[in-house]
Amino acid sequence: MLVVMQEGAPETQVQQVIDRLVMMGFTVHRSTGVTHTVLGGVGPLETFDTAEFEVLEGVQECHRIVSPYKLANKRFRPQGTVISIGDVKIGGSEVVVMAGPCSVENEEQIELSAALVARAGAKVIRGGAFKPRSSPYSFQGLGEEGLRMLRAAADRHGLLVVSEVMDRSQIPLLVQYSDILQVGARNMQNFNLLRDLGLARKPVLLKRGIAATIEEVLLSAEYIMSGGNYEVILCERGIRTFETATRNTMDISAIPVLQQLTHLPVIADPSHGVGKRGLVPAMARAAVAAGADGLLIEVHPDPDHALSDGAQSLFPEQFMELMGQLRLIAAAVGRSVAE
Amino acid sequence: MLVVMQEGAPETQVQQVIDRLVMMGFTVHRSTGVTHTVLGGVGPLETFDTAEFEVLEGVQECHRIVSPYKLANKRFRPQGTVISIGDVKIGGSEVVVMAGPCSVENEEQIELSAALVARAGAKVIRGGAFKPRSSPYSFQGLGEEGLRMLRAAADRHGLLVVSEVMDRSQIPLLVQYSDILQVGARNMQNFNLLRDLGLARKPVLLKRGIAATIEEVLLSAEYIMSGGNYEVILCERGIRTFETATRNTMDISAIPVLQQLTHLPVIADPSHGVGKRGLVPAMARAAVAAGADGLLIEVHPDPDHALSDGAQSLFPEQFMELMGQLRLIAAAVGRSVAE
Amino acid sequence: MLVVMQEGAPETQVQQVIDRLVMMGFTVHRSTGVTHTVLGGVGPLETFDTAEFEVLEGVQECHRIVSPYKLANKRFRPQGTVISIGDVKIGGSEVVVMAGPCSVENEEQIELSAALVARAGAKVIRGGAFKPRSSPYSFQGLGEEGLRMLRAAADRHGLLVVSEVMDRSQIPLLVQYSDILQVGARNMQNFNLLRDLGLARKPVLLKRGIAATIEEVLLSAEYIMSGGNYEVILCERGIRTFETATRNTMDISAIPVLQQLTHLPVIADPSHGVGKRGLVPAMARAAVAAGADGLLIEVHPDPDHALSDGAQSLFPEQFMELMGQLRLIAAAVGRSVAE
Amino acid sequence: MLVVMQEGAPETQVQQVIDRLVMMGFTVHRSTGVTHTVLGGVGPLETFDTAEFEVLEGVQECHRIVSPYKLANKRFRPQGTVISIGDVKIGGSEVVVMAGPCSVENEEQIELSAALVARAGAKVIRGGAFKPRSSPYSFQGLGEEGLRMLRAAADRHGLLVVSEVMDRSQIPLLVQYSDILQVGARNMQNFNLLRDLGLARKPVLLKRGIAATIEEVLLSAEYIMSGGNYEVILCERGIRTFETATRNTMDISAIPVLQQLTHLPVIADPSHGVGKRGLVPAMARAAVAAGADGLLIEVHPDPDHALSDGAQSLFPEQFMELMGQLRLIAAAVGRSVAE
Repeated sequence: MLVVMQEGAPETQVQQVIDRLVMMGFTVHRSTGVTHTVLGGVGPLETFDTAEFEVLEGVQECHRIVSPYKLANKRFRPQGTVISIGDVKIGGSEVVVMAGPCSVENEEQIELSAALVARAGAKVIRGGAFKPRSSPYSFQGLGEEGLRMLRAAADRHGLLVVSEVMDRSQIPLLVQYSDILQVGARNMQNFNLLRDLGLARKPVLLKRGIAATIEEVLLSAEYIMSGGNYEVILCERGIRTFETATRNTMDISAIPVLQQLTHLPVIADPSHGVGKRGLVPAMARAAVAAGADGLLIEVHPDPDHALSDGAQSLFPEQFMELMGQLRLIAAAVGRSVAE
Repeated sequence: MLVVMQEGAPETQVQQVIDRLVMMGFTVHRSTGVTHTVLGGVGPLETFDTAEFEVLEGVQECHRIVSPYKLANKRFRPQGTVISIGDVKIGGSEVVVMAGPCSVENEEQIELSAALVARAGAKVIRGGAFKPRSSPYSFQGLGEEGLRMLRAAADRHGLLVVSEVMDRSQIPLLVQYSDILQVGARNMQNFNLLRDLGLARKPVLLKRGIAATIEEVLLSAEYIMSGGNYEVILCERGIRTFETATRNTMDISAIPVLQQLTHLPVIADPSHGVGKRGLVPAMARAAVAAGADGLLIEVHPDPDHALSDGAQSLFPEQFMELMGQLRLIAAAVGRSVAE
Repeated sequence: MLVVMQEGAPETQVQQVIDRLVMMGFTVHRSTGVTHTVLGGVGPLETFDTAEFEVLEGVQECHRIVSPYKLANKRFRPQGTVISIGDVKIGGSEVVVMAGPCSVENEEQIELSAALVARAGAKVIRGGAFKPRSSPYSFQGLGEEGLRMLRAAADRHGLLVVSEVMDRSQIPLLVQYSDILQVGARNMQNFNLLRDLGLARKPVLLKRGIAATIEEVLLSAEYIMSGGNYEVILCERGIRTFETATRNTMDISAIPVLQQLTHLPVIADPSHGVGKRGLVPAMARAAVAAGADGLLIEVHPDPDHALSDGAQSLFPEQFMELMGQLRLIAAAVGRSVAE
Repeated sequence: MLVVMQEGAPETQVQQVIDRLVMMGFTVHRSTGVTHTVLGGVGPLETFDTAEFEVLEGVQECHRIVSPYKLANKRFRPQGTVISIGDVKIGGSEVVVMAGPCSVENEEQIELSAALVARAGAKVIRGGAFKPRSSPYSFQGLGEEGLRMLRAAADRHGLLVVSEVMDRSQIPLLVQYSDILQVGARNMQNFNLLRDLGLARKPVLLKRGIAATIEEVLLSAEYIMSGGNYEVILCERGIRTFETATRNTMDISAIPVLQQLTHLPVIADPSHGVGKRGLVPAMARAAVAAGADGLLIEVHPDPDHALSDGAQSLFPEQFMELMGQLRLIAAAVGRSVAE
């Protein structure tokens, strides 16, 4: 950590800061410049709030210089992490498409969904069994019965399953039915949930919260990894900004930024990023062009009658067409999408 | 709901929208204007996603005209809600101050805290026993032992207790020790937690999420109320914006806006809103001047040695001075703060 | 316009709103529903502030249903606008690349720049002669001398010129040297400047302000067009959000959204969008994949010694490599980039 | 400036950064820590883009430690600036209220306005003669004729005048009629305008842009001051956030933050901050409670018939009542508002 003292800060104030640093376990290195005294502290993991130093008398500002996450840090595994599930590899040269309806609604819907996404080249089927809805009066999902349907349909079509875990108590159930455990944007900082997922033996797909900085996403990944589960997939899905033309603003630049900072695979969810199907193909293409390792896309056999998120679900034919475009774009960046 | 058709939308498209509305249980009223056909739908609670209609062919835009929350709506109880706990009334003419340290650390710290906040005129002591920390390597709270200390100190000084519940599983414990159950900003849309709190028999203090709109705060309150617990206190504590000079940007205007929309009491947490103690008094005064029904303030007997959030905790003498100012400001808006 | 009255609003309030609408030139159509009375107003261009009606007694909300811009509206020219300058067509099937240094610095620098961008396949050279700098102590540009150098270099290499006009008084000078007049993000709502550009006989490249909504961008284009100049190119270059990992957050979804709303060509400026060269290629590729009609890219023969914005300028070899990738991506979306 | 090298950065990279710093005029002080080498540079004003160093190989991050503004810095005049115009003092113990209509509309309207604001205790009348409107089809102001009316009305009632200058070319006109030259939020970074105002001999009221950081506000003030005009009044008027319940989100915390950073007076404009009159009194009270040196408030003798911004203009009786409340709140913070 670096603590910059104010111009002309008296020696007593400098000493107070040094004492505080030492008390917190830092080895302090002092550098007296022409205008400012700068204290460099080498210590334990830098997880404290820098404001604790900034409010000390005589302190101008404070900067953390050691990253507050270590397991998620690129330096921890510079070659990158490839997560293998069966013969699907996430984070490798193939761009992995995960697709399906927002919610599992019934046997027929999920069977039709599985058939279509498998035919199009997706490797993973998505579908929610527990739906976090912002109104208490909306459809809340089929629960375990939905998970069972999803698993069966996936198995019939050789697909993996990704489904959301909303609460710590649901982990055992999800582990039983799903290959990848999804953490929704609203739970990105549900630290109890993250800690428990650190003990799970399944890969976790961690969605960025709509107000989460990139550093906070990595700290949440660190929570999971610090429990021993290193298979974390990060997912950009739009942040909240002043623009109201789209539901959220998809931060496509988060993809290359994350790839500089971490070894974990990074995918994108254009469906939630924009909220309207007419914009989903353009954003899916953009994500792959920017280097995404995968996509999470909502597609429904009959979006007009979907029980949730119908407006952002692609029609089957739109999805097929998009997959063709994605193959060309993946090739342009030296990657591939399965046929 | 109002659906505005595009200029020149053909009759078949208008009919498709009407059919869809009818299918969803709406009674439809059609109004054919010079440029636009407008469909008015009267139906069940308006909790659907308006995007579902906006993606239909020929539709220009769609507006919800019935509020998506009803129990939290001002119209439900126009005279306002006053929550009585013992002889403390929240939402009445008195501005209720809730104060104390970020975390319960040990017996002595919490006893000193209780003594000082009681002496200053606060009616409720705050203090966390379970701390949601953004790093897995930070202090995580004393758990039940902390709650026990907090309760005992409060009882010695005639104070009520407010403490945070981080997870559904903690509700029984919190109900036992705390008078008010606090939902943190990160849990504002943890719908499972909200639902369970709807069954609790204790008032809930619901903090606004850092990216939550005012409508979303009210929908979360509705979740709790729809379970039968009508005693919800809303709390503004800063939203995330581009400005980095403060930890968050306190949305003081949310106080009068909420008071127009809902009958529930509205308080403010300036400590989390700004993150540095030097700014807390100004924002506490601003909140009361804007009409807040209460304040949640961090104060610590020895902030320089606090285990968490020391930088935003007031020193005891600052807190005493602030309480004096708040009495004058409360009087200026026709209210009072206890001596 | 639609005015939704509050539930149970008395007849006198309804009449007051009707009178106000009539006074403002609207023809009013009244629709009395079960819960709400809705007033539809057909009138002049909808440029008023809807808040004017929302503060009337008994009014619940008010929605504009006629777009506040008409010349920029897609409906005005559904086939799209192609701007031809010499044999360069912006808005056609070719993705037009405009590239060059942030500022014109000297003869040699601009000659090297022109040579390299022409060789790489760009059709337009960019370069600022007047620099709006946020500090009064920074390099402010070479002025007319810079424009002269830029024009000469462009002519030697068969390129068009785009350069920024910072102030109304600079228009005559820019018209003389530049083929496209650029309006910077900070001037997007400098309405006097926009009005004067409406009288110019040169295409205008209008950059989105960092806090401008998509509707505001279109209203600014309308300002220019209402003066008679219909050749406006819109440019997404990043909006300000809470994320600090990049200088701005590039709103890639603005590209397809704008293409649904307007007939004007839409380009992207990834250099200002992200602010660091390492991220520029990913975002340039994303913009083309999302459907951009062109790109504005900063490249410098020697970025390490650039007088401004060196950190976001590509090295020559990076730019050459990027152009190759862009050709493949353009092909994937049915377009082309010149060799 | 501090440049933090990456862990393990080789000596050649350290040397390159040192060379670059020296080339730019810095004296470099090197500090080799256990994990990181840190370079401290003491040099000219720190106005460069830190990204220029962050993109150099081996550099982890870079921090400016000398403020990029000096004349606006609190340290330049720690006792604070009081701007005296006639017998009105802005920045002293009195909270100065500036009030009046959005636009000057006609003789009668401005005379009624002047009479009412003078009677209520305001010291300055506001009123626009040139209106920057976001639509080219809206009322654009009366121009010089409006200024003449405003000046005459102010003189009849012993008021000062504040009015907006939209463009460099209007400065001579405004200087002739107005006591304070207002720079609107959209012009906060119109650097040519700021520079010319630095040569004016009248105080400048500088409004914060809706996407401007506090540091950027101070840099814009520095532009004006660097020209020799040290009489700058800063004005918080709302920033753009995701919340749509109010037109902007008023950043009340900017008031105490600015007062820590600068010696210049800080006022607030609650009318533009919220956009609806029902919320203006609460926010005006909040601003004074937070320490504002003054207020800019829209009030109109007949808001229902105002030509612009009627929805946010107070009715005369509302304004009178508010002034009474403000006197009590000012007293609570040791200040006063004139009778």
